[in-house]
Amino acid sequence: MPAMPSFAIGVDLGGTNLRIAVVDDQGTLLEKVTLGTQVARGRDYVISEMCDAIRELSAKFSRSGRMIGAGIGIPGIIDQRTGMLRESPNLPGWENYPVRNEIEQRLGAPVMLENDANAAAFGEAWLGAARGQESMCMITLGTGVGGGLVLGGKIWHGMTGMAGEVGHMTIDPGGPRCNCGNVGCVEQFASATAVMRMAREAIANGSAPELSRAANPSDVEFSAEVVYNLAIEGDQPARDIFNRVGWALGILVADLVNMLNLNMYVIGGGVAAAWSVFSPAMFEEVRKRSMVYAATAPVERVTPPAGASAEVVSPSMGQPTIITRALLGSDAGLYGAARLPMVEGEGREDAGEGKRKFA
Amino acid sequence: MPAMPSFAIGVDLGGTNLRIAVVDDQGTLLEKVTLGTQVARGRDYVISEMCDAIRELSAKFSRSGRMIGAGIGIPGIIDQRTGMLRESPNLPGWENYPVRNEIEQRLGAPVMLENDANAAAFGEAWLGAARGQESMCMITLGTGVGGGLVLGGKIWHGMTGMAGEVGHMTIDPGGPRCNCGNVGCVEQFASATAVMRMAREAIANGSAPELSRAANPSDVEFSAEVVYNLAIEGDQPARDIFNRVGWALGILVADLVNMLNLNMYVIGGGVAAAWSVFSPAMFEEVRKRSMVYAATAPVERVTPPAGASAEVVSPSMGQPTIITRALLGSDAGLYGAARLPMVEGEGREDAGEGKRKFA
Repeated sequence: MPAMPSFAIGVDLGGTNLRIAVVDDQGTLLEKVTLGTQVARGRDYVISEMCDAIRELSAKFSRSGRMIGAGIGIPGIIDQRTGMLRESPNLPGWENYPVRNEIEQRLGAPVMLENDANAAAFGEAWLGAARGQESMCMITLGTGVGGGLVLGGKIWHGMTGMAGEVGHMTIDPGGPRCNCGNVGCVEQFASATAVMRMAREAIANGSAPELSRAANPSDVEFSAEVVYNLAIEGDQPARDIFNRVGWALGILVADLVNMLNLNMYVIGGGVAAAWSVFSPAMFEEVRKRSMVYAATAPVERVTPPAGASAEVVSPSMGQPTIITRALLGSDAGLYGAARLPMVEGEGREDAGEGKRKFA
Repeated sequence: MPAMPSFAIGVDLGGTNLRIAVVDDQGTLLEKVTLGTQVARGRDYVISEMCDAIRELSAKFSRSGRMIGAGIGIPGIIDQRTGMLRESPNLPGWENYPVRNEIEQRLGAPVMLENDANAAAFGEAWLGAARGQESMCMITLGTGVGGGLVLGGKIWHGMTGMAGEVGHMTIDPGGPRCNCGNVGCVEQFASATAVMRMAREAIANGSAPELSRAANPSDVEFSAEVVYNLAIEGDQPARDIFNRVGWALGILVADLVNMLNLNMYVIGGGVAAAWSVFSPAMFEEVRKRSMVYAATAPVERVTPPAGASAEVVSPSMGQPTIITRALLGSDAGLYGAARLPMVEGEGREDAGEGKRKFA
């Protein structure tokens, strides 16, 4: 008789949605519910609502398996030692409150908190584009640019839980000002916000008639997707914008390859949908700028399974450096969060040489 | 009765010198010998000479302690799995030869190979500026710019042993061409070679009368040190050059802080002697460019013990981010190499969850 299967709860506590998934230890998503995050009603309300939903879901699956615990992805900086939020601009009033302990007490099960970008990286490393890789870096291109690092099978938190801020690495030291205080960050070239800024600049220059006809700069519908569609249709100003996205990502990835020499770099988020229009410039830049990448000379480019377009580099040093698209979309964070309690100790930065309970 | 002390051999196999040290498990250097590296006489000659010297030294100390093994720092890329050199421009003929096994056999003791920049980082992490830190990054400013990463007490090798190439991260995407194939690398702004190039440029512009009087561009004595001395004396063109060094290092360190959120960044190598003239620009740049650094707001700057000048940042998030000078000079690599066999398994990238035999 096979061992009784186990499952865990993965939560994605976003600014607008609270998503909760039941995932078994083989990585199968058994059920997913989406609730609105009524942040305005306060911390206690949100926690109660979340715990009710988790209890309901875990009761439903308790006949078929053992509940291991819950992982919760949160947009903010988490103190893994205390299980509290250091900073969370979208969740006012959550700081200096024992979030993890409170939820553990209510659920009577182990709970782990994780930054949402780290949870997404962990999900892609478990079941997505980086499946089977011990180490990877994920870059998420949304309204901003975020990231997460998985090193030797564990999320790399850094000293204060702020590691992985690849979106604020400097690409152009004299580039556009960023909200973070720096100028010329990756985020100023490769986020949806940056695509829209570059489109507005091109329109203002009078150099982009199609962009200007297709979209009204003051319209909320004027989104990076419009620009992407024009680029696909061959509009040169739109293509120029995505060449710029690829250029910036190429510099970033080359820096990451030179510094960390990882197996796998995974690019996700909404703007990654424009992979076909930005990735040629990105690969060109990485080849020029990273001797570590070049040391494994590209011999072939393949078109892998749907959505996973990647440049595969010949393993002249034994293993290839792979730069590819994310596979799990917005579910990456749910899978990653659910994985946390399955991999005992590894999700907490103070756990040291934690052993994997489930391989 | 106290346990019998142990010692290990650390080797720095440079292009011109072969240095060998006996270091005990408390970090005391018991003896150090320097031989010329007669690379031209071939691999077998160098290995024999090295093994003879190691045997002689370890016989000398065998009465007072147990020999743990030897660690050898080598300029090149090492395949930790096989103990062979993947690439080593300064040691022709050493590739595809079982260097580690051969030396182990001759010595009858465990031998570990390590890239020399990694060994230096490991030395500073054990006994130098980063003593007691689990994680650190070292940046070495010599004729080139090298680096090494220690994460969670272990050297981070990356997939093919090429991690830590911080000197080839891009600072200025349109900057000067680098030998690595990229343009605008850190190395083009913060190495001794770069200091000399910038000095020649200033002289050619006619904008640096002191530099031009102090040094002849074709003279081998025209070194970064001349420029440094002029900067110390207040010569503006010389100061401008070191401001540029600091600017580039600041962008690099900000990138590292944003990405890895480590406790400690250590800057060593010959050019680090010019700390007083480049570090103000460096700290200014890091503060501007890293929100992770800024999150631990600087409240005080102290003048730490001799040579260790650092900006100490208030631990508003529990721990400070420290950027400081290396302490061990050219011995860092010897200490780090000797440490490798003391810390069983941790120096080999395939060792997984190696336990520390000696704490």
